[in-house]
Amino acid sequence: MSEAEDFVKVAHAAREAAAALAPLPRAPKDAALYAVADALVARAKEIVEANALDIEAARQGGTAEAMIDRLRLDERRVEAIAAAVREVADLPDPVGEVVRGSTLPNGLELRQVRVPLGVVGIIYEGRPNVTVDAAALCLKSGNAVLLRGSSSAYRSNSVLVTVMQEALAGTEVPADAVQLVPGTTRESVKHLMRARGLVDVLIPRGGASLINTVVEESTVPVIETGVGNCHVYVDADADLGLAMEILVNAKTQRPSVCNAAETVLVHADVADAFVPAALARLAAEGVTVHGDERVASYGASSGIDVRPATDEDFQKEYLSLDIAAAVVDSLEGAVAHIRRYGSAHTDAIVTRSQRAARRFVARVDSAAVAVNASTRFTDGGEFGFGAEIGISTQKLHARGPMGLPELTSTKWVYTGEGHLRTSAGTVIAVERGE
Amino acid sequence: MSEAEDFVKVAHAAREAAAALAPLPRAPKDAALYAVADALVARAKEIVEANALDIEAARQGGTAEAMIDRLRLDERRVEAIAAAVREVADLPDPVGEVVRGSTLPNGLELRQVRVPLGVVGIIYEGRPNVTVDAAALCLKSGNAVLLRGSSSAYRSNSVLVTVMQEALAGTEVPADAVQLVPGTTRESVKHLMRARGLVDVLIPRGGASLINTVVEESTVPVIETGVGNCHVYVDADADLGLAMEILVNAKTQRPSVCNAAETVLVHADVADAFVPAALARLAAEGVTVHGDERVASYGASSGIDVRPATDEDFQKEYLSLDIAAAVVDSLEGAVAHIRRYGSAHTDAIVTRSQRAARRFVARVDSAAVAVNASTRFTDGGEFGFGAEIGISTQKLHARGPMGLPELTSTKWVYTGEGHLRTSAGTVIAVERGE
Repeated sequence: MSEAEDFVKVAHAAREAAAALAPLPRAPKDAALYAVADALVARAKEIVEANALDIEAARQGGTAEAMIDRLRLDERRVEAIAAAVREVADLPDPVGEVVRGSTLPNGLELRQVRVPLGVVGIIYEGRPNVTVDAAALCLKSGNAVLLRGSSSAYRSNSVLVTVMQEALAGTEVPADAVQLVPGTTRESVKHLMRARGLVDVLIPRGGASLINTVVEESTVPVIETGVGNCHVYVDADADLGLAMEILVNAKTQRPSVCNAAETVLVHADVADAFVPAALARLAAEGVTVHGDERVASYGASSGIDVRPATDEDFQKEYLSLDIAAAVVDSLEGAVAHIRRYGSAHTDAIVTRSQRAARRFVARVDSAAVAVNASTRFTDGGEFGFGAEIGISTQKLHARGPMGLPELTSTKWVYTGEGHLRTSAGTVIAVERGE
Repeated sequence: MSEAEDFVKVAHAAREAAAALAPLPRAPKDAALYAVADALVARAKEIVEANALDIEAARQGGTAEAMIDRLRLDERRVEAIAAAVREVADLPDPVGEVVRGSTLPNGLELRQVRVPLGVVGIIYEGRPNVTVDAAALCLKSGNAVLLRGSSSAYRSNSVLVTVMQEALAGTEVPADAVQLVPGTTRESVKHLMRARGLVDVLIPRGGASLINTVVEESTVPVIETGVGNCHVYVDADADLGLAMEILVNAKTQRPSVCNAAETVLVHADVADAFVPAALARLAAEGVTVHGDERVASYGASSGIDVRPATDEDFQKEYLSLDIAAAVVDSLEGAVAHIRRYGSAHTDAIVTRSQRAARRFVARVDSAAVAVNASTRFTDGGEFGFGAEIGISTQKLHARGPMGLPELTSTKWVYTGEGHLRTSAGTVIAVERGE
């Protein structure tokens, strides 16, 4: 069979599994997740061995040591992955929640109920733990999942999926609810992206170029995640001590993640007081500043190296100890800068002014807006969701951290006793009995 | 300027307008809608004159009289359109609604707030009243709108948009918040479908082929609306009198709409009692039945003409006095038929059995499931939404009738007083004062 035929077979099996999984209540789903967690721990050695082959291949291919560390699984990491599966099992089940409900004037009882999306496709890079995390979140929310990880982790992912499927075989959740997309070629991603009608939603997790490719080429509806060009705006009315701590935390606490700050904007009124101090502090923290002309001139006069910022710098998600910096003449100037260059992930204002906070929150069109807090709090765990499948930066369906409810759709159910719609309003047909 | 350049100009103006419109509270939006309604009434003659040119052109082009009636505007119809605008103004404003909110354990105040989507593109066919209805719903929900109606209504739509823009010019809502996509060629639709980053969502309203084209070709996120292959399933435990009335109502009360029934499925246990009677009644109502072999044999023995149903018949949205019919051996058989052939719009079960109703509702994966009620109730007006922009048959973002809240996204806002995220948990930086 060709890879394309293989894919169609896998996708059809996932659809069947999704149909069987959707009506399951919480208890059998939780039991299945616990079985998966137990199997991962029991078969950790097997998983680590397969992973060693991926690591060996990556090393021979000249992959950087930092990337290899992301790829690596040891028994401790496998145990952590299993623990995360149990945590997902312990979260409330979103399926069946009545979102809205009323009795209509004509007596129809109307309910909007959460239901699974169906078949969810996940395209991701790097870490093999995503294979299990994503599967657990999808199963818990009643969805089948098609996983397409990095080809560099194909052996690890294959074993992880096999272990999960064999664990599911002894439960009420069909084993086909978790499957790997066959193949490691670019074509195999295309099958997934063109599987409209078989796959209900695609969630790409990874860098900007992966996400752009999926958005451009997919006919399956996509939820964009994760690209974060986050801003910290230091307002004219900011407490500058607070601003400094928030800036440093947002930039340096974990620079490689999407909710880290990538640009700082400083109101001109406080630039004299703030920028030189910030440049010194950022330099001390090992951060390279890419500044506009005004920031650069502060650098020159205080003897701190500032690289010139281009348009590209202001658009960039560095994910490193680099930050773009600009002085703006007003809050509106900050908002305009963010609208122009931002990725609509998270943007923060530091201010003591109620009015400034209110205006910034109303005008910045991002998934999250922070007031006097680090951008680092935009996170499913911090928001109390327990787990997240990603952070949506689009406006449709879900925006911001996506937990279990974001992996569901809804269904309207209305119940009558012979309700007919006529031009004169509702008429109720009467049972005649048999 | 080329049509493509024209489009980009229009779309940029819409984005600017959307940014200005988004933070407006309810009062100025309602005032603007009332101004639009007044202007439509005041300039009804002008509108009717432009419409006469469209009608003249359609007639010369040999358009069927039924289509011409859909295109026609007279002063009474313009007044009805204006009245609908006032009704939209009187609906609650979805923007600013706090959907969820809590204080996190670390003291951050977290709120999820409804915000407009931004720029909404609507692609539609036929009736020029959609031009105004869609604009009113978008403005009320704080969105700018790009309208791409049928080329046959281009003159009518141009005048309607001009009247709306000139009315808006005297209000706080920017006139550019309502614009027509320039041009009447197929290319002009493509500009809209490829305007990712400029347009936030596309809503196609029309037949299956329009919707499929948009879904296939659009890089802008799409909300699919309206194709309805609705089923009525007559269960083994149905009250057959009730089943007959529900079937006839669902099929004949208004056959041209998406929530009309297109297929009837009858449980084998009640086929003898129900099918011959149903064939007679449907014939009396002028309905042509396209039946499977079992239904055809009932037709033959009772002397009623039944056409043979093909796979195509079971897939079809007739929108006419035709219905496909089949006998199924079980409730599961009905569910499998609906999953295979349905469009996931609305499917009804008629039954006295709690268990059958529960199983049907859990297993049919459609936007709406009706129990002992006509499919005709799946409608924004009937559900109490006041107005609808369409009925979504997809699972992402919105499913079923879409009212004003479905034209919004959300934004997370979190407020702290110097909240920093550290590996040891939240630390609160202290204001030092200036």
